[in-house]
Amino acid sequence: MTTVVYGTSASGNCHKVRMVLDITGTPYAWREVDILQAGTRSPEFLRLNPNGKVPVVVLDDGTALAESNAILWYFGEGTRLLPDDRLGRAQMLQWMFFEQYTHEPAIAVARFIRVFLNKADDPRLPDLLARGTRALGVMEQHLATRDYFVGGRLSLADLALFAYTHRAGEGGFDLDAFPAVRAWLARCRTQPGVSEMPPR
Amino acid sequence: MTTVVYGTSASGNCHKVRMVLDITGTPYAWREVDILQAGTRSPEFLRLNPNGKVPVVVLDDGTALAESNAILWYFGEGTRLLPDDRLGRAQMLQWMFFEQYTHEPAIAVARFIRVFLNKADDPRLPDLLARGTRALGVMEQHLATRDYFVGGRLSLADLALFAYTHRAGEGGFDLDAFPAVRAWLARCRTQPGVSEMPPR
Repeated sequence: MTTVVYGTSASGNCHKVRMVLDITGTPYAWREVDILQAGTRSPEFLRLNPNGKVPVVVLDDGTALAESNAILWYFGEGTRLLPDDRLGRAQMLQWMFFEQYTHEPAIAVARFIRVFLNKADDPRLPDLLARGTRALGVMEQHLATRDYFVGGRLSLADLALFAYTHRAGEGGFDLDAFPAVRAWLARCRTQPGVSEMPPR
Repeated sequence: MTTVVYGTSASGNCHKVRMVLDITGTPYAWREVDILQAGTRSPEFLRLNPNGKVPVVVLDDGTALAESNAILWYFGEGTRLLPDDRLGRAQMLQWMFFEQYTHEPAIAVARFIRVFLNKADDPRLPDLLARGTRALGVMEQHLATRDYFVGGRLSLADLALFAYTHRAGEGGFDLDAFPAVRAWLARCRTQPGVSEMPPR
């Protein structure tokens, strides 16, 4: 039994999973889920993830694992995608929690509203743009003196943040003001297995 | 130089840090930060955490580490607070990301609005209550057949979720409908170092 991913190809959280599987050379089958057609609300899907969100992976032994960054951890542990030291691993997780708490709820949600819901005049967008721009500023400051987020090489933190940052323009964000972020995106793109998310 | 915690005692994210330090017997000094008095916006604080959020810990060597669940990881790694196997660690992280993405933004924010801002009629509360109640339902289903979230014993996932769940009532949530959650809270309270968050 091979690893099965239940995911939406144009979702950054799901694209993270595709990248970690490609980088680690893990064979997988991809089952496309249409989140706009209640694909995450069916009884079958809720048996895999009672929280009703993609991505979910079903492992060789039938175990279902949810939460994109926990999935990154599962496939990354034991590889060079994790720092060798305890502090480095904690710093990597710091950026992964930053991604899920501060970055994604602004940048991914703005993109979702514009690209998936096609509502460029949604009243939530100005606040999301302000919050996402602040998150990009935090990244810019960190990356001004670093090639990657932690430990000088590509880690799970980079994959987590690459996913929505490289498509932030679709959410209405302008990366021109963030040269260190753009340079980091370019460095990530040189790494085997780091790929562009398919368009919606 | 001892570990220094910059935190708000009545914040669940900060209380997590207190619990992991108490459980692991790590000496620390606590510096109280008043989040309502812009304590996280000062230049001094922003040097510790450019993202402007408590908690932050400053480690023995002067390194600042932010994001409550990354701090839990740092102090928990190498102890029985982490599962022994890779899948268990990923499952633990699944629940910690669930906590920060789905649980905290509803349950902690509702409590913040009611207890810190004292706005029981805030228009955001009905939606937060609905979302938080769904999150409690996901926990209830999982805990119906388990003593702790992962691996049959207390882990970082339990600490992360205990912090705001045990005070969910202050956010307007009624735990009567969640007997497995209440039984789990009671089990957590029997563990040395698991403590009640100080009142606001």
